Amino acid sequence: MYPNWILQRAYLTPLRKALAYKGQSWTFQELNNLSIKRARQLSALGIQQGDRIAIMGPSNPDLVVMLYACMHLQCEMVMLNRRLSQEEVAYQLEDAEAVTVFVADEDVLKLPPKTAHHLFSTIAKGTEDTLDIDKEWPLHQTTTIMYTSGTTGFPKGVRQTVGNHQASATASVFNIGLQPEDVWLCAVPLFHISGFSILVRSLLYGNQVYLYDQFDVETITQNIIDGEVTHMSVVAVTLERILHTLEQLAMKASPRFKLMLAGGGPVPVDYLTRAHALNLAVAQTYGMTETSSQTATLASEDAIRKIGSAGKPLFFNQIKIAEPNDDGEGEICIRGPHVTPGYIGRFAQKSATIDGWLHTGDIGYIDEEGYLFVIDRRADLIISGGENIYPAEIENVLLTHPAVQEAGVCGKHDSRWGQVPIAFVVLKEQVSIEQLQAFCSQKLAKYKVPKEIILTDTLPRNGANKLVRRKLLQ
Amino acid sequence: MYPNWILQRAYLTPLRKALAYKGQSWTFQELNNLSIKRARQLSALGIQQGDRIAIMGPSNPDLVVMLYACMHLQCEMVMLNRRLSQEEVAYQLEDAEAVTVFVADEDVLKLPPKTAHHLFSTIAKGTEDTLDIDKEWPLHQTTTIMYTSGTTGFPKGVRQTVGNHQASATASVFNIGLQPEDVWLCAVPLFHISGFSILVRSLLYGNQVYLYDQFDVETITQNIIDGEVTHMSVVAVTLERILHTLEQLAMKASPRFKLMLAGGGPVPVDYLTRAHALNLAVAQTYGMTETSSQTATLASEDAIRKIGSAGKPLFFNQIKIAEPNDDGEGEICIRGPHVTPGYIGRFAQKSATIDGWLHTGDIGYIDEEGYLFVIDRRADLIISGGENIYPAEIENVLLTHPAVQEAGVCGKHDSRWGQVPIAFVVLKEQVSIEQLQAFCSQKLAKYKVPKEIILTDTLPRNGANKLVRRKLLQ
Repeated sequence: MYPNWILQRAYLTPLRKALAYKGQSWTFQELNNLSIKRARQLSALGIQQGDRIAIMGPSNPDLVVMLYACMHLQCEMVMLNRRLSQEEVAYQLEDAEAVTVFVADEDVLKLPPKTAHHLFSTIAKGTEDTLDIDKEWPLHQTTTIMYTSGTTGFPKGVRQTVGNHQASATASVFNIGLQPEDVWLCAVPLFHISGFSILVRSLLYGNQVYLYDQFDVETITQNIIDGEVTHMSVVAVTLERILHTLEQLAMKASPRFKLMLAGGGPVPVDYLTRAHALNLAVAQTYGMTETSSQTATLASEDAIRKIGSAGKPLFFNQIKIAEPNDDGEGEICIRGPHVTPGYIGRFAQKSATIDGWLHTGDIGYIDEEGYLFVIDRRADLIISGGENIYPAEIENVLLTHPAVQEAGVCGKHDSRWGQVPIAFVVLKEQVSIEQLQAFCSQKLAKYKVPKEIILTDTLPRNGANKLVRRKLLQ
Repeated sequence: MYPNWILQRAYLTPLRKALAYKGQSWTFQELNNLSIKRARQLSALGIQQGDRIAIMGPSNPDLVVMLYACMHLQCEMVMLNRRLSQEEVAYQLEDAEAVTVFVADEDVLKLPPKTAHHLFSTIAKGTEDTLDIDKEWPLHQTTTIMYTSGTTGFPKGVRQTVGNHQASATASVFNIGLQPEDVWLCAVPLFHISGFSILVRSLLYGNQVYLYDQFDVETITQNIIDGEVTHMSVVAVTLERILHTLEQLAMKASPRFKLMLAGGGPVPVDYLTRAHALNLAVAQTYGMTETSSQTATLASEDAIRKIGSAGKPLFFNQIKIAEPNDDGEGEICIRGPHVTPGYIGRFAQKSATIDGWLHTGDIGYIDEEGYLFVIDRRADLIISGGENIYPAEIENVLLTHPAVQEAGVCGKHDSRWGQVPIAFVVLKEQVSIEQLQAFCSQKLAKYKVPKEIILTDTLPRNGANKLVRRKLLQ
């Protein structure tokens, strides 16, 4: 049994700052008191210990308090991506069999009609019961469930346990160090593992989080110049915007700023060179929802020498290449206490690991010094502004349109987002491109809607008649 | 399964310095290579994976390599205190049923006659076999066994597992922080948990250890003045000697020096005030062999405000007071992943915990802010220069002398060692004090031999005829 992180942190360092948002700040004691109150309000609504609930809201203190309240209740939290379409949300709620949804008032229209829900504002006005908060959590308890797609295009609900999150936070600190005065800037969504793991680290380390509900590049860059923050999680596109803003202002990062942790795909060399000139250390990281964030990280001092590498594993985990070819290339497999115990819903029976090894579907190799290189993403994964897009998911949507015979989706280079999805379609009936895009917009999050749809006579297929997506662009 | 710490650290940061000793230094890769070679030499001698062996030697790189070799072999290491008498060593070897003893050449005469052993020098000259080193260790694997006495005076062999040591190192870093360039000075014995835990932290954190085979106050103080080291584990008596040396030199600690971790009993207020004036931050810690080192630590910023307190628990553990009286005082109980799973040998059947709680035997209370105060040590424990001395163990020895009728031992204040043991004896035959002391010297480590033996007619006993040791001095 391990201590309830929120209670323990509030006990150990009650007066340390925990959270800053738009000029206001909260101590660990204050966040604990607010979240216990919220937990008792949820309990009065009939929410019980261990219930599986879903949560949707923008990244702000209300959401943090709601998350911590649910953690006090040891609920399994389905973290809804607020950029999803109603149809996508409906799929996840049905698959997860969530008891109810706690939704920020401004997000209620994002829920499918007739979804059972409680508004944040209503909950906050409710009466409290006298619930006792559990002081301990078991390691195997599911804290969060995050949906991620895969080869089939059907999103899978990935469980992340107390033990997964703890192992991830611990391995991270063994890698990049820790000081009590560290402050992590969070402008990545809390519903993704990149954002939620910042909250976990804050609770375990006793560090403050500077939270943003959106990527406000001017204010964030100013935080970095002033040294108000020491760490930040970025994707390539947000890193570039910060670099650009620093260059425009002819300013550099404060010496107090320590590290940019860059996830969601490789960072272009040009960005690394520019970052170096601006005093910004960048550590590239490779991870996924199934590994509760970082699995391998490239130290900033190796960024140029090992360009293109995802680095070495964090202390508690191992990486190997399954069935390597003569060049040592094969599927990247990951093992460690940060790896999910498995999925929920329709994939609950599918084991996430084989003999403890997560087979990522990504292709890569490990060089003679032990550095990992990722050379091809699983299932032709498209990474657009840090969001994962699985071609099969978009193809599945296109194929449900009565006019579409065949569909193939791939990523196309984009100077702003890194990649954007484009579709190749073989028609069986007449339909306009605009109609197809409108159809996709109804069913898919905006960032998944193909930026281009190209009509064609045939799609490239291999001998087994399987679509070869990497040949689509040719 | 968790990675073999030594292999993993050598893989992740092969070229970082791991160990410095008398002007020489070794990287993690070098220590790994040396210890794999040593493991293969041990294997060639017939030592098998999982064997329980005992180790004795001074704190130097030879011992470190031997410890790491045994860890590669996943041996259970009985850590012999080289200050013990032959009789005490014989008890531990017999109780532990150790297969053999690996002994430094200079310590061989400390072993009981006819003890099966291998000299460090002989092992180092032996042939190697081709043993494969296991890449993973299970959490429940016993890494170390350290003997500690208790109420009965019969030393108990305490198991410390991979999981115990990992949890301890992790909780410590969440408390005091970590930077890759941190260097921990180790002048406490490696056979004690205070010393061994420094090696564990070095492997997990990738930090360097400055190792000393004895407490060389001039050189150590110079390391602190020069800022060559950032952390050090001390007991009150060694802290005082460093303070005294700094004062004599009219020098202060380097700003690079971060923290003195002071264990083995409370630090006098006077020392804290002097340390403050010399730029030395002191964090007092409360822990024991059963908790794999620190369990609670008083932050240096609270040192004066909470004088006499042992602080708050480290993140992963909990402390409670069992059956408190009206003033809130009762037995201190500890729970967490750092608590031993139990004992070996004659105490193997005795559970170390009740419902997961270790009952320490120490008496204390927790104040309104959650700070622990230890007010009375278990079994009238005497702490002399950081070494634990259990009165019952000395009484048991005295009672085996044919001239002794009754014996009672207690601690007496000593300006240098904090406390020293003194004995009160009721005779049934004539014997001289010198003869009794010589008798004790044969059977007990030097620091346990009573500094005074006082002849008396009766010993203070309570209604149940039980010795009341705290009344001995009156």
